[in-house]
Amino acid sequence: MANPKRVGVVLAGCGFLDGAEIQEATCTLLSLDRRGAELVAAAPDVEQMHVVDHLRQAPAEGERRNVLAESARIVRGRIRDLATLSAKDLDALVFPGGFGVAKNLCSFAVEGRAMRVLPEVERLVREMRAASKPMGFICIAPVIAARVLGADGVQVTIGNDPDTAAAIASWGARHVERRVEEIAVDDRLKVVSTPAYMLGPWISGVAAGIDKLVSAVLEMA
Amino acid sequence: MANPKRVGVVLAGCGFLDGAEIQEATCTLLSLDRRGAELVAAAPDVEQMHVVDHLRQAPAEGERRNVLAESARIVRGRIRDLATLSAKDLDALVFPGGFGVAKNLCSFAVEGRAMRVLPEVERLVREMRAASKPMGFICIAPVIAARVLGADGVQVTIGNDPDTAAAIASWGARHVERRVEEIAVDDRLKVVSTPAYMLGPWISGVAAGIDKLVSAVLEMA
Repeated sequence: MANPKRVGVVLAGCGFLDGAEIQEATCTLLSLDRRGAELVAAAPDVEQMHVVDHLRQAPAEGERRNVLAESARIVRGRIRDLATLSAKDLDALVFPGGFGVAKNLCSFAVEGRAMRVLPEVERLVREMRAASKPMGFICIAPVIAARVLGADGVQVTIGNDPDTAAAIASWGARHVERRVEEIAVDDRLKVVSTPAYMLGPWISGVAAGIDKLVSAVLEMA
Repeated sequence: MANPKRVGVVLAGCGFLDGAEIQEATCTLLSLDRRGAELVAAAPDVEQMHVVDHLRQAPAEGERRNVLAESARIVRGRIRDLATLSAKDLDALVFPGGFGVAKNLCSFAVEGRAMRVLPEVERLVREMRAASKPMGFICIAPVIAARVLGADGVQVTIGNDPDTAAAIASWGARHVERRVEEIAVDDRLKVVSTPAYMLGPWISGVAAGIDKLVSAVLEMA
């Protein structure tokens, strides 16, 4: 058997309102494992923007959590500091979604079109592109691809949200509409995206789109 | 189309070392949704036994978290207090695993054979049995079935761990060995179980066993 493909999965915490979307992250792991890929999970060792009580759906005042330690919950501790990860360690890279992507990996939730990307995240995306290795972006994560690779005219989908699509276009990237079980593929830049919980409504549709994304990313790796 | 089956899923927090095993819980949601079942997620509104840093895999001193609020992360807030749930609301009931089951839903992690089951959990299991409605128990959760239904001689699997199997037998229940992708079915008491991360090693095997469990539980509902 050929060596397994090494696939980085960047997590943004644990919970859709302040971290990684748990169902999207888990469906990514499942699709990768079923296809024999080797998981290389990573997250930045930084404090979360804030902590949200997911029952009341409101910020939990006074609480602090670390993105790397919370992300470790999803992958049973099999995770490393994103700062130690480089493109040479990987054959492909995938970003599950969740508000944590827009709060902890970049500042889209707060700054919109003026958003900045966490330097470690931007570095890794640029390394992967320079090495012509494929990347997958799920849910809101395509804003990172659009911000970093906008000058190259990267094509992505976040479903059909007009405000987010306009932000993506403002950076020079191209937005295409897709349904939840569909993917957008930029063959030239080897970037795949799927709307997931930007559309929902629930896990089986999200899982179908993510499975197509994982399949397309691995085919290009 | 027939009315969808209403399936209770009891969560024990969010993270395998102090809460619900996230991958097991998510795979349960995926299997249920793909089969058209209606999710009724619930968790007890109690404080976790403790909080574990999943990166260092050691207790986080001074931190406190609520089982219901943390469980809400897995199901995007679609969850209710277990105290409000009764067998008449459900056609079936499933317990994903994780150390949180043995710490927050019962005291197996601390007290072993002398363990007690959280009264709300025991009440619901007894109600489901009295109504002859099916139940599924994943990973370590079969200790709850064995403790509550031991006098009825319920048959369950937790894989092949000898200490846990001996505890199960000590309550009058019967333990049978199974592999990760297999289930044990007690047709008489309508109890299904699968080893999941009692064996592992990773998500695709765990998902296969859970999918069989969900299928068997729904067939009996």
